[in-house]
Parts: sequence; C-alpha cells; structure tokens
Amino acid sequence: MSGAVNFKECGSVLVTGASRGLGLQIVESLASGGFSPGKIVATARNPERAQKLQELASKHSNIHVIALDVVSQESIEKAAAEVTQLLPEHGLNCLINNAGISVSADFNTVTAEKMIETFHTNTVAPLMVTKAFLPLLRQAASRGGAGGSRSMSIQRAACALNMVSRCMALDLEADGILCMAIHPGWVRTDMGGCEAPLSPEESISSTLSVIGGLTEKDHGSFLDYTGEVLPW
Amino acid sequence: MSGAVNFKECGSVLVTGASRGLGLQIVESLASGGFSPGKIVATARNPERAQKLQELASKHSNIHVIALDVVSQESIEKAAAEVTQLLPEHGLNCLINNAGISVSADFNTVTAEKMIETFHTNTVAPLMVTKAFLPLLRQAASRGGAGGSRSMSIQRAACALNMVSRCMALDLEADGILCMAIHPGWVRTDMGGCEAPLSPEESISSTLSVIGGLTEKDHGSFLDYTGEVLPW
Repeated sequence: MSGAVNFKECGSVLVTGASRGLGLQIVESLASGGFSPGKIVATARNPERAQKLQELASKHSNIHVIALDVVSQESIEKAAAEVTQLLPEHGLNCLINNAGISVSADFNTVTAEKMIETFHTNTVAPLMVTKAFLPLLRQAASRGGAGGSRSMSIQRAACALNMVSRCMALDLEADGILCMAIHPGWVRTDMGGCEAPLSPEESISSTLSVIGGLTEKDHGSFLDYTGEVLPW
Repeated sequence: MSGAVNFKECGSVLVTGASRGLGLQIVESLASGGFSPGKIVATARNPERAQKLQELASKHSNIHVIALDVVSQESIEKAAAEVTQLLPEHGLNCLINNAGISVSADFNTVTAEKMIETFHTNTVAPLMVTKAFLPLLRQAASRGGAGGSRSMSIQRAACALNMVSRCMALDLEADGILCMAIHPGWVRTDMGGCEAPLSPEESISSTLSVIGGLTEKDHGSFLDYTGEVLPW
C-alpha cells in the first residue's frame, strides 16, 4: 500500500481554527497521541485570546501557535511565511482546513452579508489557505517514495466547499498532494450545540484515524468521520 | 392539470440581467411571441446603457425597463417598490432570476474577491431578489384557482445556487409559489463564447416553453432547457 500521511511518521501538521471546538481537539489529540507529529502548527485568528490552546502549547513543545485569520489574504501570506521559517527542510505534510463558521438564518432572516461571510470563511478561505501553503505541501510531497504521497490537504466538509475541494483535487493531483473533504459528524461544540450525539474526542479520534489511513485511492473523495464515502 | 404560469395567460414577467445575452433574448422572445405577457419588466444594472433593450422597449409597449443592480440591496428594494407601482392589482406572476456573471479562473489565478463576486451575483442575489419580490409573487399566487399556482420564481442554474434554490422551494411551498432552477444550455453569448452549440433564440424558445408547461410537480426541481430533470 502506498502510504499517505500517517501520523506515526508525519513530520508536520497545520490545523486552522485551533482556538476551540474541533480544531482545538485535533491539536490536543495529535499532541497527546502515542505517535505525535514532529511539529503541530496550530493557527487561530487571535492567538493571544486562545487561552486553552496556549495552555496546551505550554505542555507540548511540538505545538507552535501562529496567528491566521483565514479571511484575510494578508494574514494568510504572513502565516505562510512564518510556517516556512518553522519547517525549512521537510515542508508541510498535512494541512487541515478546519476553521469554519456556522450562521443560523432562514429564508426570512438571511442577508447577503451573512451568506457572503459564511461562503468566504467556509469555502473561499480553505482554497486560499491551500494555495498559500502549496509550496510547503509540494516540498513534502516531493520527498515521498515511489507511488507514495507524503502530503495532503484536508477540508472540513461544507456544502459549496465540497465542489471546490473536488476541483482542487484535480489541480493538485499532478503534485502528488492528496485532497479530501471530511465531515466530522454532528459534534457537541459551540457550533454543534449540546444535543449533538458525538463528543469532540470521539469525532476527532475517529477522524484522525481516517486521515492516518488515507491513500491515493481516496484522492478527491468526500468521507465522513468513520471513513464512509459520502455523496457529493 | 393544475396550471402554473402559462405565458398564454400570464399577466406579468420580470427578467433580471435583460440588457444582453440570454436576458435580452428572453424579453425579445416574450415580447414577440404569439401570447405575450401583459407586462414584461426588464431590469438592467444600467438601463441608460442598455441600447438594444431600449430599442426593443420602444417597439413593444408591454416592456417596462427598470434599473436593478442585483448585488445592491438598496437597488433591489428600490426596484421592488417601482414594480409594486407598476403591478398594483395582480402582483408578479413570474420572476426570472437570469442575471449572472462568469469568472474564468483556475486554481492559480482565482482570488477570494473573484469567488465572492461570483457567489454574490449568481447565488446570493437571486435569493435576495426573490425575497424582495415575495409580496408581489404572493399576491399573484393568492389569485390562483383551486390547486393552481399562479406565480413562480425561476433561477438560472449555477453550482451553489441549485442548493439555495432547493431550500427556497421548501420555504415558498406554503405560499403556492413554484420554484425551479433551469439550465439554459451552452449558448452563443458573450458568456458562452462563439463555439457553443445553441443560439440564444434556440435556448430561450425551448426554455420558455419549459417554463410555460411547469406545474406543481416540478416545484423544487432542476431542469435543463429541454425540460429534462438534471441531478442536483
């Protein structure tokens, strides 16, 4: 089996939106797992306000907290430059586009501004972030063995994003960078609410094991947190 | 058969983006058809620059040209107020959300601004326009006979829009307003380019005949210009 990123041998992972919810859980699960990546880059819009993330980083020396506001191109480019400094040799093995917002609105209350803000954060930003980190993903991919991809870009599932993710997969195929969208399930976070059936630990432990087992055959696919293929 | 809007007995139709391309063709085909609607409201971002539309309006007294920039909420509300003056009794039978843009960009050239502009014009605007014209669509729907819907909102197909259109269909069902997305085919317009197989006349003559035959059973569906059901 040509191995994709396996967290057991993963040099570096970047997680956006890591200040709380599932992003924070991903960082925590990666840092405390038996096979922690060499470097975990945890990004947050306002790192100085991300208290739980800072506490976690103070306990694990492989967590690097960096400021990244995914809807600001300037912030994306600044973060990419910082991460380039941090990962000078091996590039970035795994980019997890987790940052996202949920706007509750129905036909009567929805506004153009709300729709555009959601689209920007959940659909446009993952593409822009992936573009900015592409040199680092390419660098990691180029180190892969015969048939083995060593870098990937994972998108958290959202409606219009799945389309973008599929297009992105076509564009990145030649670079040997795997591209997948993963739905983390309905989870008890600020976004999911308290009635959701999954705890963040359950969702992320399962999601990370799915990511760890991804291979070329999953390129361009849309999976749920159990590894089940979902319809586009 | 419970009749939807049939252009033979249609009081009023509003077409957005009517200055050129398929929008202009819709207005022309409606105005010169054997059974022309009582009032054709043709909207354009800059009516004073829409020379062909103005010429057409000078030949057909049932064409009313109104300014409408679909990405401006202020302009949408102003247009809705004007159309309310124009259609005081019967409301609006058919809203054709035709205005749209096409931005050619690939993974390397795409920018957040381009994606957001396209999303705003093609996906958000049809929803905002429909919301603003809802009282007029409701007014027309309430005049329908037993089981007969007398108003509808038609969206021109575009990726993320189909999702919005389906959600809109759920919201408008109770009002008896039919909602459909229609793909006009690949047409020789500024947007479609000169290699497209269909002329604007062919596409629109077929599209209008599909619209004219729509009934409740088509509510929420996504059709092509021949009336074929397309997958979402």
